[in-house]
Amino acid sequence: MARIVDVADPEDPRLAPYHAVRERDLIGRDGLFIAEGRVVIEKMAGAPGIRAESLLIAAHRLDAMADILARLPADTPVYAAAQPVIDRIAGFAVHRGLLATGRRIDPPDAEALLAALPPAADVLLLSGIANHDNMGGLFRNAAAFGVAAVLLDADCCDPLYRKAIRVSVGAALLVPFARLPRDADLPALLATHGFRGLALSPRGATLLAAVPPAPRTALLLGAEGPGLDADLLRRVASVRIPMAPGFDSLNVATASGIVLHHLLATRAGDQ
Amino acid sequence: MARIVDVADPEDPRLAPYHAVRERDLIGRDGLFIAEGRVVIEKMAGAPGIRAESLLIAAHRLDAMADILARLPADTPVYAAAQPVIDRIAGFAVHRGLLATGRRIDPPDAEALLAALPPAADVLLLSGIANHDNMGGLFRNAAAFGVAAVLLDADCCDPLYRKAIRVSVGAALLVPFARLPRDADLPALLATHGFRGLALSPRGATLLAAVPPAPRTALLLGAEGPGLDADLLRRVASVRIPMAPGFDSLNVATASGIVLHHLLATRAGDQ
Repeated sequence: MARIVDVADPEDPRLAPYHAVRERDLIGRDGLFIAEGRVVIEKMAGAPGIRAESLLIAAHRLDAMADILARLPADTPVYAAAQPVIDRIAGFAVHRGLLATGRRIDPPDAEALLAALPPAADVLLLSGIANHDNMGGLFRNAAAFGVAAVLLDADCCDPLYRKAIRVSVGAALLVPFARLPRDADLPALLATHGFRGLALSPRGATLLAAVPPAPRTALLLGAEGPGLDADLLRRVASVRIPMAPGFDSLNVATASGIVLHHLLATRAGDQ
Repeated sequence: MARIVDVADPEDPRLAPYHAVRERDLIGRDGLFIAEGRVVIEKMAGAPGIRAESLLIAAHRLDAMADILARLPADTPVYAAAQPVIDRIAGFAVHRGLLATGRRIDPPDAEALLAALPPAADVLLLSGIANHDNMGGLFRNAAAFGVAAVLLDADCCDPLYRKAIRVSVGAALLVPFARLPRDADLPALLATHGFRGLALSPRGATLLAAVPPAPRTALLLGAEGPGLDADLLRRVASVRIPMAPGFDSLNVATASGIVLHHLLATRAGDQ
């Protein structure tokens, strides 16, 4: 059970990580992330590789959060304050008065993450995903369809940005991820670890419905608009989602869900 | 070719529909909608059943918009102003200085819309979708997968809300839609028009991959959380998307994309 600490002063130095949340989103948080809301904080409490640094909770919500607080380590401070104090600290009206800060413990690098995966595993490999909503949606779908890991190139935004965590419904805290070095040779990396690469593109060579099951698939996704690097597309098998004429445009997170469902459904049918 | 009208005064009464866009989003617009950005305005210029009332464009962007302006009726006024004037009028920094107002012409009711559809056609039937991002995403997927019409129950938000149009990438202006009366008997309505109803639910009876093709499918989708009405689920065939244990949560727009892709892919395979 976590340790409840009543606070009344918005300037209490123990609450510094919660100060001016929006401004800090922009300038970085030294490895700390902010989680908001009951569902996300619940995911955080059970996430391996994540340490809850503290919680800041509206005092009138403590009882409703008791089940989650019971699952936190005994030394995790839970600062309890009146809702207006929390809003003052954060700099905006905090929905339901539930905030937490956390940190990843010893995050693996991409090689170590891939090397530790089980024999049957799919991964996402994201290139240039700079939009936090899309990043959150990609992690949400990764969790929903049992993706084992997400690899991010150097041009992706941080999955632990506050809004990305929220849109992911906490999946950004659950699905292991690692960032690739800028000079990584992706096709070589996938071959080393026995992954079939599958690059999604509107001009992909194979229709999704014709993609057979495989024990290990790495789904490569680029940002809407620019898409994946042309050199990469030449070196990895490519797949396309059929669409109606005249409006061939899908959101990248939605597209990931369509492909991941196909991989899960065909694997199940193959067994 | 539309008619260019230079304006310099933010208080020009002809620009009243563009004043304080965000506040007007909240209080309603008397049937007028606001379109933003080149891609959406391009869709508006070609959309049947939509009349562009006027455009408000940063003067330095007129040349780059010439191809779209050429496709508007000759009497459509295009107000050209300096970007700072546009930002003053709208009340925020207008991305790339491109705004338009439009109106639906004689929108059909649900019965008329269904009666006019071709023999092979899928429709979305949305219940309680109150989130503008989700509404936009649903329309985007509807357009991408060739959905013929969208029907909205009384608890859905307006697809022509500014943000819903933007998230839909203009699809909300292209896919015909109609609102259902609050007391509509949906299963009876679908039967009358020869639609197979398919209600998406985490506890759906049939796995999506096992759903066979049909000439006319109505996909029923409810809001995340509450989902579809229990009585409706008892009266319509239900379908579920398989997910990983422990995180059975998909965004409703993503879920629509997964089902619509299945319908399109199996129909193609059936031919």
